[in-house]
Amino acid sequence: MSTTSHQIAIELADRRYDILIGGGLLGSTASFDAVPRSRTALIVSNTTVAPLYAQQLATTLGKIHGEVLQLVLPDGEAHKNWETLNLIFDRLLAQACDRKTVLYALGGGVIGDMTGFAAACYMRGVPYVQVPTTLLAQVDSSVGGKTAINHPAGKNMIGAFYQPRLVVADLDTLASLPERELAAGLAEVIKYGPIADDAFLDWIEEHLDALLRRDRPALAHAVRRSCEIKAWVVGQDERESGLRAILNFGHTFGHAIEAALGYGQWLHGEAVGCGMVMAADLSHRLGMIDRAYMERIANLVERAGLPTKAPALGASTYIELMRVDKKADAGKLQFVLIEAPGRAGVHGADERLLADVIDAHCA
Amino acid sequence: MSTTSHQIAIELADRRYDILIGGGLLGSTASFDAVPRSRTALIVSNTTVAPLYAQQLATTLGKIHGEVLQLVLPDGEAHKNWETLNLIFDRLLAQACDRKTVLYALGGGVIGDMTGFAAACYMRGVPYVQVPTTLLAQVDSSVGGKTAINHPAGKNMIGAFYQPRLVVADLDTLASLPERELAAGLAEVIKYGPIADDAFLDWIEEHLDALLRRDRPALAHAVRRSCEIKAWVVGQDERESGLRAILNFGHTFGHAIEAALGYGQWLHGEAVGCGMVMAADLSHRLGMIDRAYMERIANLVERAGLPTKAPALGASTYIELMRVDKKADAGKLQFVLIEAPGRAGVHGADERLLADVIDAHCA
Repeated sequence: MSTTSHQIAIELADRRYDILIGGGLLGSTASFDAVPRSRTALIVSNTTVAPLYAQQLATTLGKIHGEVLQLVLPDGEAHKNWETLNLIFDRLLAQACDRKTVLYALGGGVIGDMTGFAAACYMRGVPYVQVPTTLLAQVDSSVGGKTAINHPAGKNMIGAFYQPRLVVADLDTLASLPERELAAGLAEVIKYGPIADDAFLDWIEEHLDALLRRDRPALAHAVRRSCEIKAWVVGQDERESGLRAILNFGHTFGHAIEAALGYGQWLHGEAVGCGMVMAADLSHRLGMIDRAYMERIANLVERAGLPTKAPALGASTYIELMRVDKKADAGKLQFVLIEAPGRAGVHGADERLLADVIDAHCA
Repeated sequence: MSTTSHQIAIELADRRYDILIGGGLLGSTASFDAVPRSRTALIVSNTTVAPLYAQQLATTLGKIHGEVLQLVLPDGEAHKNWETLNLIFDRLLAQACDRKTVLYALGGGVIGDMTGFAAACYMRGVPYVQVPTTLLAQVDSSVGGKTAINHPAGKNMIGAFYQPRLVVADLDTLASLPERELAAGLAEVIKYGPIADDAFLDWIEEHLDALLRRDRPALAHAVRRSCEIKAWVVGQDERESGLRAILNFGHTFGHAIEAALGYGQWLHGEAVGCGMVMAADLSHRLGMIDRAYMERIANLVERAGLPTKAPALGASTYIELMRVDKKADAGKLQFVLIEAPGRAGVHGADERLLADVIDAHCA
């Protein structure tokens, strides 16, 4: 197994941190050189991931922290709420953890979002490290410091911009990933092509089969290039006052699907995959991209094994749910659209046209 | 009534904002010149303050925002928790408030802490303005960006450093303040003397009677000098990595009293007043200040009408509660002590000595 690591720096206005990508990282203390040597650490994971990797990580961290606690949360987007978040606070306080305590998020996007938000809020901020174990978390959610929980009325509505000290993406953990999760992660990989790098879209088209059979060099390149693009975007706009919004391509439609079905029915990546098909169609109908480019995106989503049709709940249901989207401005819906191959921007859209797009992509 | 305003700037590393202090500020749009002109604003207040001042503020804000919503929360420290915080999120989402929405905290420290924390978290951060209506909030809690809610295991354990755009301290609102609340605010005024400005301690001793009868020039000076000291401290150490901790003089003892009795039994300022007496005694027993200086602090607390004896719950109860204090380091209790008149620092203390101090100051 390769242990070759790539190291990508996230350069922010007032600090920087690294993303490490490679094999065998969880077993090596060197992976965690950048972490403050606190007396106490808490690994937060879930019932699926903890049995696979928590002991290995705890053994490694035992060499750099005095005491390594573990907390296992229920698995799934349905649990990304205040009640589950509070289990982290309860544990930290029960153990009298001080504000030097380091939190480790071992899992996918839900664990990363909740652990990061807990770290942002506990005693007004403690250090944390992202240890993503899903493709989606490795290429997207663990990088850039967006943390949040869901509110019944909208996804990721309660949260913080709070950067980790380090991201450790161990490619070995992708071996245990269920196929459905792998596909969900590919949605976020595919995303980076149309919004930022047309050549990467070509590469994904050529290597999608290799990615689906978990070819190590292909996965390593996909994670690396995705993180490079994300680091470049976040470095320019940490708090999403402009450019960073392009990372939400497909997400306005996707969030509405997730909210309409109830969190956890569709995986986030599945909703984003379908959402990208819809957002590409909207971009096409607005004359920004041609039909062929729209179809390239839809074909990739389909080849990845992701849904391309949304549940038929009626356009008005989706439009209502989109009104609480964080990009909405003065009640006006905003979408990340593909302005040209490899370039995205935020645009408003007429509600009649929007309803047409939704209707065209419902099962 | 004087409308003469003082303006004090808080200068932080990457932004600055002003504290306005004066009469008639709530009725003047000029007070809010620094606030972004959003379509929507939400005034968060409580059942005590809203009937007195919410309409006046809403009328003023109606001239600078498209729509001014109001939310009235239950009054008191016992409600500074997640359930009450969530009422703010529920309201914002029910009205589809976007991330340009400005929140206004109209009330005392509890309203300020909760509204500020809600602003920090809603859609990962919206602007907010502090409009403190109690002496305690005007001289301390509204300034400096500390926001939080309580956890059953500890006060202010869940929160954020999140700065307001502006603080508007209208001295007229102090006219309606109950005497007990006035005294609680004086605890935080008294605090600034021993920790930072011995001449201010002299001034407080001379003017305490004037403050207790709400003499306007005396109140204006107390608020102004307190805010100047706080602005100076926060400007040097926004996130309490060092100096800022001195603002917590009396607070480690005070938080333990509040937690032991249940939040809301004693006002925060009452607990801080008693806590300062205990912390001054600890400073004296450690040889940092002489008996006369310790007694000056205790006398001021008593003259202000604040309790100087803690409930007799046993030293071990208080010490256990102090272990979750945010200043604790590797399980070791830390206290803000007076190192010399007008100068404070953080120090550890032997638990036997600590128990002696607690026992000496229990009723």
